[in-house]
Amino acid sequence: MNTPRYTDLVESLPPSVPFVGPEALMRASGRAFAARLGANESGFGPSPKAVAAMQQTVADLWMYGDSECHDLRAALAAHHGVAPENILVGEGIDGLLGNLVRLLVAPGDAVVTSDGAYPTFNYHVTGFGGVLHKVPYRDEHEDPAALLMRAEEVSAKLLYFCNPDNPMGSWHPARIVQRMIDAIPEGTLMVLDEAYIDAAPEGTAPALDVSDARVVRMRTFSKLYGLAGLRVGYAIGAAPLIAMFDRIRNHFGIGRLAQRGALAALEDQPWLAHVQAELLQAKTRLREIAAEHGLHALPSATNFVTIDCGRDGDFARALVSALAARDIFIRMPFVAPHDRCIRVSAGPPESLSRFDAALGPALRGLA
Amino acid sequence: MNTPRYTDLVESLPPSVPFVGPEALMRASGRAFAARLGANESGFGPSPKAVAAMQQTVADLWMYGDSECHDLRAALAAHHGVAPENILVGEGIDGLLGNLVRLLVAPGDAVVTSDGAYPTFNYHVTGFGGVLHKVPYRDEHEDPAALLMRAEEVSAKLLYFCNPDNPMGSWHPARIVQRMIDAIPEGTLMVLDEAYIDAAPEGTAPALDVSDARVVRMRTFSKLYGLAGLRVGYAIGAAPLIAMFDRIRNHFGIGRLAQRGALAALEDQPWLAHVQAELLQAKTRLREIAAEHGLHALPSATNFVTIDCGRDGDFARALVSALAARDIFIRMPFVAPHDRCIRVSAGPPESLSRFDAALGPALRGLA
Repeated sequence: MNTPRYTDLVESLPPSVPFVGPEALMRASGRAFAARLGANESGFGPSPKAVAAMQQTVADLWMYGDSECHDLRAALAAHHGVAPENILVGEGIDGLLGNLVRLLVAPGDAVVTSDGAYPTFNYHVTGFGGVLHKVPYRDEHEDPAALLMRAEEVSAKLLYFCNPDNPMGSWHPARIVQRMIDAIPEGTLMVLDEAYIDAAPEGTAPALDVSDARVVRMRTFSKLYGLAGLRVGYAIGAAPLIAMFDRIRNHFGIGRLAQRGALAALEDQPWLAHVQAELLQAKTRLREIAAEHGLHALPSATNFVTIDCGRDGDFARALVSALAARDIFIRMPFVAPHDRCIRVSAGPPESLSRFDAALGPALRGLA
Repeated sequence: MNTPRYTDLVESLPPSVPFVGPEALMRASGRAFAARLGANESGFGPSPKAVAAMQQTVADLWMYGDSECHDLRAALAAHHGVAPENILVGEGIDGLLGNLVRLLVAPGDAVVTSDGAYPTFNYHVTGFGGVLHKVPYRDEHEDPAALLMRAEEVSAKLLYFCNPDNPMGSWHPARIVQRMIDAIPEGTLMVLDEAYIDAAPEGTAPALDVSDARVVRMRTFSKLYGLAGLRVGYAIGAAPLIAMFDRIRNHFGIGRLAQRGALAALEDQPWLAHVQAELLQAKTRLREIAAEHGLHALPSATNFVTIDCGRDGDFARALVSALAARDIFIRMPFVAPHDRCIRVSAGPPESLSRFDAALGPALRGLA
C-alpha cells in the first residue's frame, strides 16, 4: 500500500479538533438549538448597511478579491490612526494566529499562554511543534506578572494574552497591559488578542504604538460587528512584522465579499454603538437571570457573561448538557477551577428569555 | 531593539509574492481595466440562483459557518459518487495546496512539478522548506513520463500535475492520467489539480477512485462556477488523507456564505452547462481574433486560450504591457520557451471585443 509520507510533526499531532461547532452538535442530537449563545456571536446581527453592501457585491463574486485588501486596510488604518503597512487582514483571528505561529515557532520553541485561554491558539502552537508553557490565572484574571516571568524563564518566542479575557470575561485596564508590554522580555513577541475590545469599557486598550515591535494586536469583525460567518480579522503591528506575513500567507485568501462587508461594517460606527448599548442591557439581564437562579455572574468586559455555578466542573458540564437537551447552546471554560462556570453569550432578549426559561428546569433536573 | 525571532526557514524565504493582482496593477497605473481577462475568472458570472441564495444568507452572517462544511460536503459527495469522508472543503485550491504541503513536506523534502506550472504551489513548497525539482514541458504539454521518472529519482513526497494545464491550456486524456496514477512511485502522493476540468472535453478526468491513496484531486468554484471571490475549493481523496487535514486546518475558515453560495452553485448544473456553452463560443472567438492578427491560438481545454505570438519572451512581455496600457488585463506564462505566448481568459463578448480592438494597435506599437 502506498501511504503518503506525512511529516514527523504531523504524525505526532492529535486527531482532535479545537471546537465542535453548534451545527455538528445539532446534527449529533438531531435537534435544532432554540438559542445560540455558545460561540459569542452577535445575535444583534451585522450592520444593515453592511448587509445591503454585501447583497450588491454578490454578483461580482466572479472576480477574486484584492490580494492586498487595499481599501479595507486603508479604512482600518484611518480608523486606528496608523498606516496601512501596520495592518494585516486575515481569515479571522484564527487564521492570523496560525500564520503568526508559523512565522515564529519552530519545533521545540517555547510559547507562553494562560492555562485555560484560547484553545485554537494552542492548537496552532502544537501544530507547528511549539512547546506550550501554561500559567495559571490569578482568580478570574490572566496574570501578567506570572506570564512575563514564565516568558523570561523559558525564553518564549510568543506570549499570548487576551484582554478582555475569554472565557472569563475579565479584563485588565490599559495601564496594566501597557506595563506588561513595556516589560516584555527581549526576544519575546506579545500577541495581544483584543477580539472583545469593542465590548470593553473605555481605558481597556492601551494606546496603539506601531513603532513598538514587541507586540502585535488582533482584532475581529466576528464579534460585535456581527460578521463571524464572513471570516475577517486583522492584526495591527510594526510594519516589518506585518510585511513578514507576505512570505507565507494565502495571498488571495480574503474574498471580495469579505473585504466589502468588513469595510461597510467598519463605516457604520453608529451600528456598533447600537450593538454596544444592546449588549449592556443583555449583560444586565444575564446577571439578573443568574441571580434569580441562585448563580453568580462574574463581571464582564466582553460580549458574554461567565456565570459561576458554585459547584464543580462535573456540575457545570452536566448543566451545559442539560441546557443543550433543552435546545440551548452555551459553552463553558475547559480548565479547573474555572470549569465551575458556564459562559453565555449576551444575545437578544428572545434568546435570553429562552435561556432563562430552560435554566430553572435544567438546574432542578440536576438537583 | 526587540525584534521577533522568526524561524530560520521564514528568514530564508523571499519577500516576493506569487502574483500581483489586477487591483494592485490598477492602483499602480491609476487606470481601471476595461477588460479583465488575466486571472481566468468567469466573466459569465455565478449562477443567478447562487446569487439569490447568497443575498438571502447575508443577514445570517453573524453566525460562524459549520466547521465541518457538512451540507456542502454531502452535496459534493453525492455529485461525485463518493462519501463525505472523501471530500475536504478549503479556502480555494490555494489554501488546500498550502495545507497539503504542510502535511507532507518538511525542510529538505523533495517535490516534483513542471517548470512553468502553478507558481502558488511552488510558493507553498518553498514556504515549508521543500526542495522543488522542475521537469520541462514536452512541447506544450506537461510530461507524465518525465515527471514520474524524476519523482522516482528524488523520492518525491509530492508530485504536482495540473490537467488541463495552466498556463498552456493543454491536456492529457484520462487514460494517460490514469496510467500516470498507476505508475506513481512508492511514497509519492500525486496532487492532480483539476481546477479547469469543468472546461475540458469528456474523457479528460480519470474515473474517481477514492480507495486509491496515491492521488488527491483538487477542484474549485473559482473558475467555471464563477465564484473566485468567494474562495471555495475542495479536495477529493482517500478518507485517511482527508482526515489528516483536520490536524492542521483552520477549522472555522470556510464562512457561512461561502458554504451556502458554493452549495447553490453546485445545485445549478444548468448554469454550469450554460457557461460551458458560452466558453466554447468565446474560445472560438479568441482563436479568430488571434488569427486575424497573425497570431496562433493553441488548443485549449480550459477557460482561457494561450496564444503563441511567434516571437520571444521580451516581445510577449511587451505585448502584455502594451495591452495593459490600453486597459486590457491579461497574463502570460513565466518560463521560456512558453513565455513567447500570452494567456487570455475566455470572457464575455464585450470583453473579447475590447481585447480585439486593443490588440491591433498594441501589436503595431511594438513593430
